[in-house]
Amino acid sequence: MTKELDLEFVKKIQKEILLLSQARALLHWDLETHMPKKGAKARAEQLALLGGLAHEKLISKELWEALNRLKNQELFGDQKIMIQRLYKDVEKARKLPKEFVEELSRVTSLGTIAWQEAREKKDFKIFQPHLEKIVELKRKEAEYIGLSGHLYNSLLDDYEEGMTVEKLRPNLEKLKQEILELLNNIKNSEIYKNQNLVLKKKEFSKEHQIELVKDVAEKIGLGKEFSRIDFSEHPFTTRISQGDVRITTNIRDDPLFAFGAAIHEAGHGLYEAGLPEEHEFTILDDAPSLGLHESQSRFWENMIAKGEHFWRYYFDKFDEKFELGDFDKWYKEVNAIEPPMIRIESDEVHYGLHVILRFEIEIGLLEGTIEVKDLPEIWNQKMKEFLGIVPEHDKEGVLQDVHWSQGYIGYFPTYLLGSIYAAQLYEALKKEYPDIEQDIAKGDYTKIRKWLKEKIHKHGRKFLADEIIRDICGEGLNSDVYLNYLRKKYSKIYELD
Amino acid sequence: MTKELDLEFVKKIQKEILLLSQARALLHWDLETHMPKKGAKARAEQLALLGGLAHEKLISKELWEALNRLKNQELFGDQKIMIQRLYKDVEKARKLPKEFVEELSRVTSLGTIAWQEAREKKDFKIFQPHLEKIVELKRKEAEYIGLSGHLYNSLLDDYEEGMTVEKLRPNLEKLKQEILELLNNIKNSEIYKNQNLVLKKKEFSKEHQIELVKDVAEKIGLGKEFSRIDFSEHPFTTRISQGDVRITTNIRDDPLFAFGAAIHEAGHGLYEAGLPEEHEFTILDDAPSLGLHESQSRFWENMIAKGEHFWRYYFDKFDEKFELGDFDKWYKEVNAIEPPMIRIESDEVHYGLHVILRFEIEIGLLEGTIEVKDLPEIWNQKMKEFLGIVPEHDKEGVLQDVHWSQGYIGYFPTYLLGSIYAAQLYEALKKEYPDIEQDIAKGDYTKIRKWLKEKIHKHGRKFLADEIIRDICGEGLNSDVYLNYLRKKYSKIYELD
Repeated sequence: MTKELDLEFVKKIQKEILLLSQARALLHWDLETHMPKKGAKARAEQLALLGGLAHEKLISKELWEALNRLKNQELFGDQKIMIQRLYKDVEKARKLPKEFVEELSRVTSLGTIAWQEAREKKDFKIFQPHLEKIVELKRKEAEYIGLSGHLYNSLLDDYEEGMTVEKLRPNLEKLKQEILELLNNIKNSEIYKNQNLVLKKKEFSKEHQIELVKDVAEKIGLGKEFSRIDFSEHPFTTRISQGDVRITTNIRDDPLFAFGAAIHEAGHGLYEAGLPEEHEFTILDDAPSLGLHESQSRFWENMIAKGEHFWRYYFDKFDEKFELGDFDKWYKEVNAIEPPMIRIESDEVHYGLHVILRFEIEIGLLEGTIEVKDLPEIWNQKMKEFLGIVPEHDKEGVLQDVHWSQGYIGYFPTYLLGSIYAAQLYEALKKEYPDIEQDIAKGDYTKIRKWLKEKIHKHGRKFLADEIIRDICGEGLNSDVYLNYLRKKYSKIYELD
Repeated sequence: MTKELDLEFVKKIQKEILLLSQARALLHWDLETHMPKKGAKARAEQLALLGGLAHEKLISKELWEALNRLKNQELFGDQKIMIQRLYKDVEKARKLPKEFVEELSRVTSLGTIAWQEAREKKDFKIFQPHLEKIVELKRKEAEYIGLSGHLYNSLLDDYEEGMTVEKLRPNLEKLKQEILELLNNIKNSEIYKNQNLVLKKKEFSKEHQIELVKDVAEKIGLGKEFSRIDFSEHPFTTRISQGDVRITTNIRDDPLFAFGAAIHEAGHGLYEAGLPEEHEFTILDDAPSLGLHESQSRFWENMIAKGEHFWRYYFDKFDEKFELGDFDKWYKEVNAIEPPMIRIESDEVHYGLHVILRFEIEIGLLEGTIEVKDLPEIWNQKMKEFLGIVPEHDKEGVLQDVHWSQGYIGYFPTYLLGSIYAAQLYEALKKEYPDIEQDIAKGDYTKIRKWLKEKIHKHGRKFLADEIIRDICGEGLNSDVYLNYLRKKYSKIYELD
């Protein structure tokens, strides 16, 4: 086989795998948005078949042999990186025996159903044996993968390539202390003690919410010819292919939920829409990590859409529809700090604690220092310790997130990495465009959009998240920048000085 | 291999093929309804890959060998029929060389694009070389398949299993003469000469049309838990799986278009929803022919929803929204006869002529007595001869249907078969329930729905269309019943006696 033939073959298989993933993405999008409920049984089978076909191709002997031959060839530029990345993915996938993959798939399918039932009945015990099995399998998976350092690294690497417990833990530990300190200051302030939220309890018509959601998504840059917005129980973003990015949102009691979720997903959506066209149907047509992906959604949701300048433009639009009256009062309600039982309903400051709580538990589960059966108790202890509140039942406690039931252990830290990166990016943006907040106050995001595309999106998976952040910010992960952002913003709102 | 192992293997492969088709159905539905337009290029590749994977499985050596071993085994009941049907499908598929299938796919893809361009420019010449190639390939395909009798049989059989030119041609020739005679009588009537259609030119708001569309689809029996309605350029029905049937309609100038199309598609949809659950993921979970499928859509669209009793119930609902005033006048406008340039906009009486025109041309193309280059001229001659009108340009003439560009030669007759079967079924229904029209006048379709499911839908593909019709009506295809229906209905409307 010549190098050219091998490359051609690898590209063909790679494209087939990605086309299968695209079809799966549509099946999944439809499941969450439009599918009549009686279609669920067959949908699971369609997804499983296409997933299996893609996996077969990924671990096929022919692909592995071609990649190994190419590994010893001289390659250059993007081609070299593409083969490296693919080699690593295939190598990891091939470490997992077929029977193991099938068992994990079965166990997590059943686990998700059990999790749903446990939630309905507010009873962790129903989920417990499933989660025990899942944790056991994920530990086994980490052993199969066998990256160096902490066992957790082998799981984390799936979501945040190159990140390790050794790098992550000190950052999160420091952050935890500092967030707790900041919260302590906030909670001792007069403003917090007299906090009385009323504006968000007004009547916000669904139709007007939808109008505003569509308006902001388009302003952020999601044009109709390459994207769409739908509604689903849990907001999400998916890209079916180049030129076809889809976000969803959900109308809830909190009038800002749909709007904020749409902005968050639009941030993900812009990333997907900005991936490099020239790498379509290759592994480089992707983001390098979930943390970097989340940095884009958090950037728009928090740095932009919870900021004063953003509301300078949008307040009038909201006021016109919902009669809010007072800008300052509204801005403070948008950013009000209140201990949240549910992660995804959390304010910016408490959010990190929710993630760190899960990270500590996951580490404990993998190390064997925490047992699944004790999770509700441990969860509630940590909630008390970190947030000062205790769930009334498991549904609003340990059962609130779907991730573990689906086998996603090692995923949660990427949410907080996203918040940290977002703060670092916002600093870098302001350095490059000192007057950018004037644009934001006019509802003009043109420069920001271009900057993000140029600096991040267009690279696809050519660099690791850490490399991209270093290139833009002059340093890697730095939780101090994030903390300074929080301190500055909330000291002002709660008049802490 | 034991019989049991072979059966198990065949069922597994069959299921995989059908799951791939289901995923393709969703990709296609989405393409027509929701996809952002820039997703088109990748969508074509997703469809092609899944189609290719399904075809590979269908013609695989392993499946063929298992089927051949099973052919010599003693099988019973549904299992026996399932293996017979699958054997025939695989045998046909295996007769086409891989290179041929690929070429046909390429040529029709390009052909469809050329057809679109030709339509836009109203110039058949752009499409001509593509259609020449397509006709050549379809003739070759018919030769590969090689069913007995007329060459056309090998194409027709794909859409209407068991039907032949030898059976079909005499029916259509007789029908043509009789329709022409009926039309002649209608056109000589005073009512026709003084016909002045005004009600359908009133303003019909889109919102009200949509409300009525949803109302009628649900009344016919498409419940939300297993179906949905969307909008697309051309109305269609698709089933993604058991429990997931989707229809579409389209709002046009003619205020009844969306309503009528929804009813037509709901008829298809009910068939899909009524297919036998116990045969899910087997070849029997399907209709035996497009003609029988069309009998269901035509049944609801024509026999029911163009009938006087239907409008006894729905007139008030329309009148309330659109102020139509006079029942008789409205009923006559709904059924007004006017020579239609476009097949899908045709009244019931002219419709058959449109199909027969296409059938004659297809036979001529296959026999070599008609050349593609002469098609516009021949089309216009036949339009003059059959309908008394001549298209102003090719877009409203020979370029009006997409079928040929996609390689669907032999498909058109199934539309007329559907109309004929529908009339036969309506007669049988009235024999079983002499008072059924009183139900219809009350908007109650419960008995009809159950009867159709019991008599047709629940059989899936266990019997041929002809067998099912014989069982219900006591005879096979009988165009006289259809003609009598037309004569009786339109003699009354145009007061021909």
